[in-house]
Amino acid sequence: MATRFALMIVPAAADDERTHFTDTFRSVDPKAPALSIGELSTQRGDGIFESIGVIDGHPQQVDAHLARLANSAAICELPLPNIAQWRQAIAEVVLHAERGESVVKLILSRGVEHGPMPTAWATLAPAPDFSAPRERGIRVVTLDRGYDSGVPERAPWLLLGAKTLSYAVNMAALREAHRRGADDAIFVTTDGFVLEAPTANLIVRQGDTFVTPAPTGGILHGTTQLAAFDYLAQQGFETRYEVIPTDSLAHVDAAWLVSSIRLAAPITAIDSVPIPADPALTHALNAYLLTPHD
Amino acid sequence: MATRFALMIVPAAADDERTHFTDTFRSVDPKAPALSIGELSTQRGDGIFESIGVIDGHPQQVDAHLARLANSAAICELPLPNIAQWRQAIAEVVLHAERGESVVKLILSRGVEHGPMPTAWATLAPAPDFSAPRERGIRVVTLDRGYDSGVPERAPWLLLGAKTLSYAVNMAALREAHRRGADDAIFVTTDGFVLEAPTANLIVRQGDTFVTPAPTGGILHGTTQLAAFDYLAQQGFETRYEVIPTDSLAHVDAAWLVSSIRLAAPITAIDSVPIPADPALTHALNAYLLTPHD
Repeated sequence: MATRFALMIVPAAADDERTHFTDTFRSVDPKAPALSIGELSTQRGDGIFESIGVIDGHPQQVDAHLARLANSAAICELPLPNIAQWRQAIAEVVLHAERGESVVKLILSRGVEHGPMPTAWATLAPAPDFSAPRERGIRVVTLDRGYDSGVPERAPWLLLGAKTLSYAVNMAALREAHRRGADDAIFVTTDGFVLEAPTANLIVRQGDTFVTPAPTGGILHGTTQLAAFDYLAQQGFETRYEVIPTDSLAHVDAAWLVSSIRLAAPITAIDSVPIPADPALTHALNAYLLTPHD
Repeated sequence: MATRFALMIVPAAADDERTHFTDTFRSVDPKAPALSIGELSTQRGDGIFESIGVIDGHPQQVDAHLARLANSAAICELPLPNIAQWRQAIAEVVLHAERGESVVKLILSRGVEHGPMPTAWATLAPAPDFSAPRERGIRVVTLDRGYDSGVPERAPWLLLGAKTLSYAVNMAALREAHRRGADDAIFVTTDGFVLEAPTANLIVRQGDTFVTPAPTGGILHGTTQLAAFDYLAQQGFETRYEVIPTDSLAHVDAAWLVSSIRLAAPITAIDSVPIPADPALTHALNAYLLTPHD
């Protein structure tokens, strides 16, 4: 959906204790040129981002998103974000949200080549209509991520666990899923464990326990997965972080891909094996996720 | 070095048989905003690129670079580039080169989100002074790329072999090399074979034979490596594409990282093990690479 509002941000140092950052913001026409061709985000995907769901103008789970942005910056050795500044930028862009669902995107790039500082911006756009995947569900395929489970710890330069702008592989995995007649993909390790989807986290149900792969090992810690676990715990279910063997996926009692904008999409089949549905729980979970919360 | 000239390009279809593409070019101020925040290159590193060396205004090995650009486009399912159009764009930007060494960069992005077509541009900048690494050599470390040798064939969605804009990992590997007191890195597989450097190819000497890792298996086929092999063959040496076990690196008779702009940088140490130098051959090889050729 077309971006409605865009704010360029001059990033402040993490320890800048100003209370107002308004003079570091500059709104720009989302369709007009705003970035120079020297941008390292564009030349090398060298930067990080967050996508935040907005419900009736309320940005969801801002703390969790900003904590993850800071974690991504640390992994990528970018200057740590000033949390107060980003919080004010989010507050500024959501003023342009209409009723219903929107999405705020935050981008922190390493900056212009040979330039003095990072480049940063925030945008607001209406969210796509995801009622079909939420209600009717999605078919997924498992795709080899090429890594064994030991790689993230062994090779931190592979930046697993950071939400970088280098998403060409994530986009290619979605194209491969579509080519196979599916809607989405689940990455798996070469040694037989489940990781995450290209732009979502997996939650599976085993009896009355809900499990997601441990967010060690280079899996992005999903903000929506955190919210879903909060809801499930409130309902008296057990929630756990565990390694999930790929071959156990055929035997789960239900499964969802959860992400900030599409929210909880129930999985109807994994590699063509039907997965049981739980429409009542899916509906209740999405109703919770669609309620403004922090 | 600061970009001297930038040309935005409206990409023509690969089969567009026009002879003149001048009206698809528009020069822009390299420092001024030229790209919108909806650019997928900047949001997702979703695009491909080439860096071409320019000697006294002559772009080196344009055919090989454009063939690789087309191959990257095919792997990434981008519209295939119109080779005649890119050739004219290169000819246009090199008009702004001074004597000595410059670099032309070509970028083909998937375009603006929800936009109708890819975005493309070409830039010209003076090349950095690489006389020190060419003459004094570089220290390198081997870094785990996380993949075994079978991954590129098994998982084409990982885009190995495409020169994509998603280079955050390549940049992180260079930072890791610097942290270890080295100048550059060589990626190796988890099953013990040599791949490539983050922005260069490896050539090793074993007696009178020169070997580079086979450009199957997800290694970018280096244009400068091709030129170096041409030169070495002219000198009566044998050249070969072969798998190179990582543990054989300690026993090579000489080694170089070769790339389009830095050209042949002799390796003086790999993981702190000294590598024999061949200053005469290195000098002759760089003299050849610095001679205008196609």
